[in-house]
Amino acid sequence: MHKVEQKFLKAIKDFNLISEGDKIVVAFSGGADSTLLLYLLKEFYNYLGLKGLYAVYVNHGLRESAFKDEEFARGFTAGLGIPLEIKKVDVKSFAKSQKLSLEEAGRVLRYKTLEGVRQRLGYTKIATAHHLSDLTETQLLFYTRGSIAGIKGFQPKEGMVIRPLFYLTKEEIYRYLEEKGIPHIEDETNTDLTIARNRIRHKVIPQLKLINPSLEDSALKLWAILSEENKFWKKHSEELKKKLLTPSGDILLKPFSELTTAEQRRFLKHLYPQWSFETVETVVRFVKSSKTFWAGENLTLLKEGEVLKIIPSRLEFKPYAYKLPIGGEVFVKEANLVLKTRVRKLTSEKELFTKPPNVEFFQFETLPEFFTVRNRREGDRFVPFGRKKEVKLKDFFIKEKIPKHLRDTIPLLTLANKILWIVGIRRGNFFAVKDLNKEVVEVVYEQLD
Amino acid sequence: MHKVEQKFLKAIKDFNLISEGDKIVVAFSGGADSTLLLYLLKEFYNYLGLKGLYAVYVNHGLRESAFKDEEFARGFTAGLGIPLEIKKVDVKSFAKSQKLSLEEAGRVLRYKTLEGVRQRLGYTKIATAHHLSDLTETQLLFYTRGSIAGIKGFQPKEGMVIRPLFYLTKEEIYRYLEEKGIPHIEDETNTDLTIARNRIRHKVIPQLKLINPSLEDSALKLWAILSEENKFWKKHSEELKKKLLTPSGDILLKPFSELTTAEQRRFLKHLYPQWSFETVETVVRFVKSSKTFWAGENLTLLKEGEVLKIIPSRLEFKPYAYKLPIGGEVFVKEANLVLKTRVRKLTSEKELFTKPPNVEFFQFETLPEFFTVRNRREGDRFVPFGRKKEVKLKDFFIKEKIPKHLRDTIPLLTLANKILWIVGIRRGNFFAVKDLNKEVVEVVYEQLD
Repeated sequence: MHKVEQKFLKAIKDFNLISEGDKIVVAFSGGADSTLLLYLLKEFYNYLGLKGLYAVYVNHGLRESAFKDEEFARGFTAGLGIPLEIKKVDVKSFAKSQKLSLEEAGRVLRYKTLEGVRQRLGYTKIATAHHLSDLTETQLLFYTRGSIAGIKGFQPKEGMVIRPLFYLTKEEIYRYLEEKGIPHIEDETNTDLTIARNRIRHKVIPQLKLINPSLEDSALKLWAILSEENKFWKKHSEELKKKLLTPSGDILLKPFSELTTAEQRRFLKHLYPQWSFETVETVVRFVKSSKTFWAGENLTLLKEGEVLKIIPSRLEFKPYAYKLPIGGEVFVKEANLVLKTRVRKLTSEKELFTKPPNVEFFQFETLPEFFTVRNRREGDRFVPFGRKKEVKLKDFFIKEKIPKHLRDTIPLLTLANKILWIVGIRRGNFFAVKDLNKEVVEVVYEQLD
Repeated sequence: MHKVEQKFLKAIKDFNLISEGDKIVVAFSGGADSTLLLYLLKEFYNYLGLKGLYAVYVNHGLRESAFKDEEFARGFTAGLGIPLEIKKVDVKSFAKSQKLSLEEAGRVLRYKTLEGVRQRLGYTKIATAHHLSDLTETQLLFYTRGSIAGIKGFQPKEGMVIRPLFYLTKEEIYRYLEEKGIPHIEDETNTDLTIARNRIRHKVIPQLKLINPSLEDSALKLWAILSEENKFWKKHSEELKKKLLTPSGDILLKPFSELTTAEQRRFLKHLYPQWSFETVETVVRFVKSSKTFWAGENLTLLKEGEVLKIIPSRLEFKPYAYKLPIGGEVFVKEANLVLKTRVRKLTSEKELFTKPPNVEFFQFETLPEFFTVRNRREGDRFVPFGRKKEVKLKDFFIKEKIPKHLRDTIPLLTLANKILWIVGIRRGNFFAVKDLNKEVVEVVYEQLD
């Protein structure tokens, strides 16, 4: 068997690309790569147990000569006895409306079109002609652009999309077509050097191949390593999620700080895949620093007691959060007041009802180490004293007619994100005093001038 | 302060390159990079709290013009008031004798020479002029050659060697020297395209810079990511060592198999840093396979019971190893015999002394699941029945006059690498029968025709 055919079947086997009974929509442009793909799928139709092949030619509407290419495509598929469907898409207006580059817009529309056909026909797979030289180009392109996460390149199988030419280089593809006398067309946009990928293909790779003629083997090796490492990191990050995330999705600061930098980066990237490397680094540095608050255009970071809160938006007001140790005090400069706590016994039940409005008492099964005093956050909820039902803090403020400009500064006495006291306004229903013989925590605030 | 000076000081601070009181030997060639390095170290001599600077010019003996360069070096260092030492090394004969490339031989000799001077002077550091453009070249070179482990490039600090220009690009270095009117010489070997690094420098990088003018930022980002990931893997592999290695340095098969492929690869590379990616893969595949033995030119792999043995040499004979379940049997084709075991009680003490020579009894506190039956390995030791002192199995065979050709096939009944029985020849001293009321394991062998 020809080496090219062996590699084609090896990719199908190694990555489990095709199962008995598959019906495949093939992306076919008439170029060398997709011509070989269609040819080999037809050649091994019975061997692979296929039950259908359907070629789709996507005309991007970018080149006049595409219509000539369509004619070739019609002839070639007719010769193989494979049905062909020609789909015209408007890449230019799609790129404009979606604010994408022409390259990216073409990619999105192509897959959308292929998937549409696949669903209409009830077919099981979509095959594209991406190969090892494409992978090499992709890696170098991502490297050049500093998009490190993408450096491993594409996968031989992504959902319904399969890439049976994954192990083949451009040279192998051309040589095979020539040997077998299989005609194909040349895509003229391939030579346009203003397209970064073409510069990599025509100017960079030939130079690198003078250093190592088996350049693609290096690409494949890097791909194999990075693909497996990504699998490890995915698994590892999932395990870390169980240890590091609170039920409300915040990150526990202490165990996070104890991770290696690499784990911190990978974990954050796992939680927020859309983040750039720079955003990830911002968060890693913020945790290391002594800062408790950071806000950027689309991101707000807060250290609150034991957790890191990541708020994916810029807050209108400035959030603050302070630790209030039991037995200690804290100055809340945003509200210009001091909060003090001490642990003591009540003298009598009467004291509970005659206390001044700047004092509250709380009783705990196990004494906490500290409270967190902070202003409100989106989504805050509150159970007013004597009630059982949670209300939105926002609704509570509105109902109580608290002026809007005050709502963002009023200190909230909290413990594990439960609001114990809207300081000076209303006590919450948690940790009420139930046993006069046991100690209570007294919290007092003093408004400064 | 000039941006170049800022980046110079930032690298020193970020990587803790220089401490108060350091005395530095500087690798100085008179080229742009090392000229800047020497100039900046002199410029910030007091600011950095340096107590000594000493320039060393290493003449590789490869170019005639080097003597002219030496004169420049003499003049430049004299102008700065820094002592200069010129060292001549014979790269060509060193390369020949050590079987190294000229590039590699030059590198080794250079560091050797610098370290020699440092020790003689009692200086604390060696500074070299490697910079961010060098890092970019190194990454692309390693990528091209498929040497993935080296893709992150060099470190700003490696032992005594520091690289204060780590954050600077070639362009920044040239522009700074020009702006300040600082002269330097041009190394003519830099333009020789038969040297792979020069091809990367002059033909590849300029093309990539047309795609991304800040190419070096991508290099720095990749370096930052891979350096931290390597730190993680080092730590992780050390933790795995505790769980996976037996006291004799073998790898426990079950927990190893449960690792992700990435962990397996990194763990093996951590244990055997000199291994190529291909060797690592060989071992990973061997463990996954149902094979129990593999031998290559310089490596032998064996599955023995619960462990993987890695023997870093080709064995003269073919090793074998079989599991013998308690209550089951095994055919040892290499010795053409069958071993059977069963658990039973002895009828009387007499049975112990009247047993036929093809039977042995063993008694355990806790019954093992299986024995391992294998032939001898280098380093095997044996305690003959009734003795306490270990002897080398090899010496035992010699003393007992066992023919040489038999020594490699005779089955050894083993448990956790302890030899219980040199089958048919001598019982070991382990697991003797001590309590007739308790069960024993009876092992019987039958020699086939």
